[in-house]
Amino acid sequence: MKRISLLGATGSIGIQTLDVIREHPEEFELVSMSAGRNMELTRKIITEFLPELVSVQEKDDAERLKADFPQVKIVYGLEGLEEAAVFHKADILVNAVLGSVGLGPTLGAIRSGKAIAIANKETLVTAGHIVMEEAKRYNVPILPVDSEHSAIFQALQGEKEKNIERLILTASGGSFRDRTREELQGVTKADALNHPNWSMGAKITIDSATMMNKGLEVIEAHWLFSLPYDDISVILHRESIIHSMVEFHDTSIMAQLGTPDMKVPIQYALTYPDRLPLVSGKRLNLAEIGRLHFTEMDFNRFRCLKFAYEAGRAGGTMPAVMNAANEAAVASFLDDRITFLQIEDLIERAMESHSTIENPDLETIQEVDKETRRYVKSLL
Amino acid sequence: MKRISLLGATGSIGIQTLDVIREHPEEFELVSMSAGRNMELTRKIITEFLPELVSVQEKDDAERLKADFPQVKIVYGLEGLEEAAVFHKADILVNAVLGSVGLGPTLGAIRSGKAIAIANKETLVTAGHIVMEEAKRYNVPILPVDSEHSAIFQALQGEKEKNIERLILTASGGSFRDRTREELQGVTKADALNHPNWSMGAKITIDSATMMNKGLEVIEAHWLFSLPYDDISVILHRESIIHSMVEFHDTSIMAQLGTPDMKVPIQYALTYPDRLPLVSGKRLNLAEIGRLHFTEMDFNRFRCLKFAYEAGRAGGTMPAVMNAANEAAVASFLDDRITFLQIEDLIERAMESHSTIENPDLETIQEVDKETRRYVKSLL
Repeated sequence: MKRISLLGATGSIGIQTLDVIREHPEEFELVSMSAGRNMELTRKIITEFLPELVSVQEKDDAERLKADFPQVKIVYGLEGLEEAAVFHKADILVNAVLGSVGLGPTLGAIRSGKAIAIANKETLVTAGHIVMEEAKRYNVPILPVDSEHSAIFQALQGEKEKNIERLILTASGGSFRDRTREELQGVTKADALNHPNWSMGAKITIDSATMMNKGLEVIEAHWLFSLPYDDISVILHRESIIHSMVEFHDTSIMAQLGTPDMKVPIQYALTYPDRLPLVSGKRLNLAEIGRLHFTEMDFNRFRCLKFAYEAGRAGGTMPAVMNAANEAAVASFLDDRITFLQIEDLIERAMESHSTIENPDLETIQEVDKETRRYVKSLL
Repeated sequence: MKRISLLGATGSIGIQTLDVIREHPEEFELVSMSAGRNMELTRKIITEFLPELVSVQEKDDAERLKADFPQVKIVYGLEGLEEAAVFHKADILVNAVLGSVGLGPTLGAIRSGKAIAIANKETLVTAGHIVMEEAKRYNVPILPVDSEHSAIFQALQGEKEKNIERLILTASGGSFRDRTREELQGVTKADALNHPNWSMGAKITIDSATMMNKGLEVIEAHWLFSLPYDDISVILHRESIIHSMVEFHDTSIMAQLGTPDMKVPIQYALTYPDRLPLVSGKRLNLAEIGRLHFTEMDFNRFRCLKFAYEAGRAGGTMPAVMNAANEAAVASFLDDRITFLQIEDLIERAMESHSTIENPDLETIQEVDKETRRYVKSLL
């Protein structure tokens, strides 16, 4: 029985993590969780899974929950989030919160000796050097939940790191895959939110359309698999069936394929190094799909991917700047305050105006994050 | 340093095995070999690799070699083949001889405790039950050299057998992939020998066109990976880029991809569980290839594949009958004595006229093999 602490329980990854727990009651137990402001869903989850500790974003919500669930310890805010992450009964932390608030809880859980299933991109993007060093020191595994990193992680089982030639991340191309830069001028929020393959949250769907999502994944892959950026490549693969690949020195490529169902990588992170049957999953039928397409990545068409390689290679605080600028810009786009292409411009300007600080500590990263958001706001 | 005994050194797999040995002189040494009747190439190989023991098919050839290479022990015939296989200095036997003569040497090498890299299909097809039992008893690994089985073997590294849902062998479809059965009526030997992806020997190229090659691989996979025939499927994949796949219970599919270069699986069998750089290999460029196609297998179009599943499920001597009938029929086709479609008819008639003998020993298998060849000849 693995006891799970789940941060971001009401989000897309959180809900699917709960599906996996529900489908394997003999294997998994939810002991601790965090949620944001969706109290209706939070109440449902508490009623069904009976976690011992629950953290929510707002104090008022916490007070009301306390009254209705006296047997559950209810906490709130950033402190509550960290308390949920390090809850003493949990064996593994599934970190599926959005944004840079995910960083502190991850480090706390590592230092409490918990395995980390990481779905929060910002953790590795902004502080990969700290997180991986701490994970090594406390000897805890960092298990990827993203389908791309899970694919690479699976392809590396039974293999030696020294034999890796390169990682090949696949990118669907997002909602605007087949549009030229000119055709991106007039695109709307609704267009951008219409992803061809995956059903995900709004922020990540926009990141997918700008290709920043793949950029963040490249930086995560750099930290997760300890490889230089020159050994991480991206290929356009519109069907998202091959979730990613590893090429070895002998030219052999190992790939993981599947339906676009996030439950598969989530469950793998929870069952690793074993597997369990997927209770409600659809099997992949390649003959039905018929064709898989592959196209070279165009870094001029997808500028955000270029920014990500630049930020990753610059290192230090630069990935945190890129990430904060992106978060602020995407939020502005979702608020109808800027156009789609202005997302890229804001990120570019934020990166250009920043001087990289080498090997930053957590405080510096958080300070730079705030500064960048202020800077982006000032440009609006 | 791994010391290698190579049977079938002058054939297609043998020559490529020598390429791998030549490219890694620090890792591999050829200590023993067998060849057929190609004395020009045999002399070249002896001169270059200086094996200590060489077996050839004919006594006359052996006598002449003895005179020219007094420092090498030269033997001949079936006895010589077995002597080469069990040569005391060899760590691993690469068995790349064609036909059922490969069986005895494999068993001899297993009993001498050598690892077996198996490229000879007949060994597992006709006597899988004996070979795998002996390999288990003497605790030697049976390493596949075929690209399909190597792909599955690679996909299974770091995985547990209990988690396998099924194997998915890919089939290019051979030279006549896009022809209907009607269009097969008038095909010539030259047409059949023109394989779209792989450059191989004549027998295996014809087996590829009839799909018997894939049938033999299904039976081999049954033995190599201890799986029932219901858990082994075949999909048409014209590009031969995905060499085969394993689907797990969680719907995840692991695949091995590569260029159609037999040196990759040969080298993997020799380096397993490690890998080495491929010295003269081409890297796979998926963007250049652009598309991978997949089509459901049609068992009425490719009758030999159906025969193979029937023979495999019948078990006992039936796969040996199917294999012998196929060898005899393909030889007749290559001799211009029968048409392409008559290959299938001869195999079908041989299988229909045979009553399966359960759990046959080596002698029974060899007797049934001879009988079947006589029977097929009688039908010509």
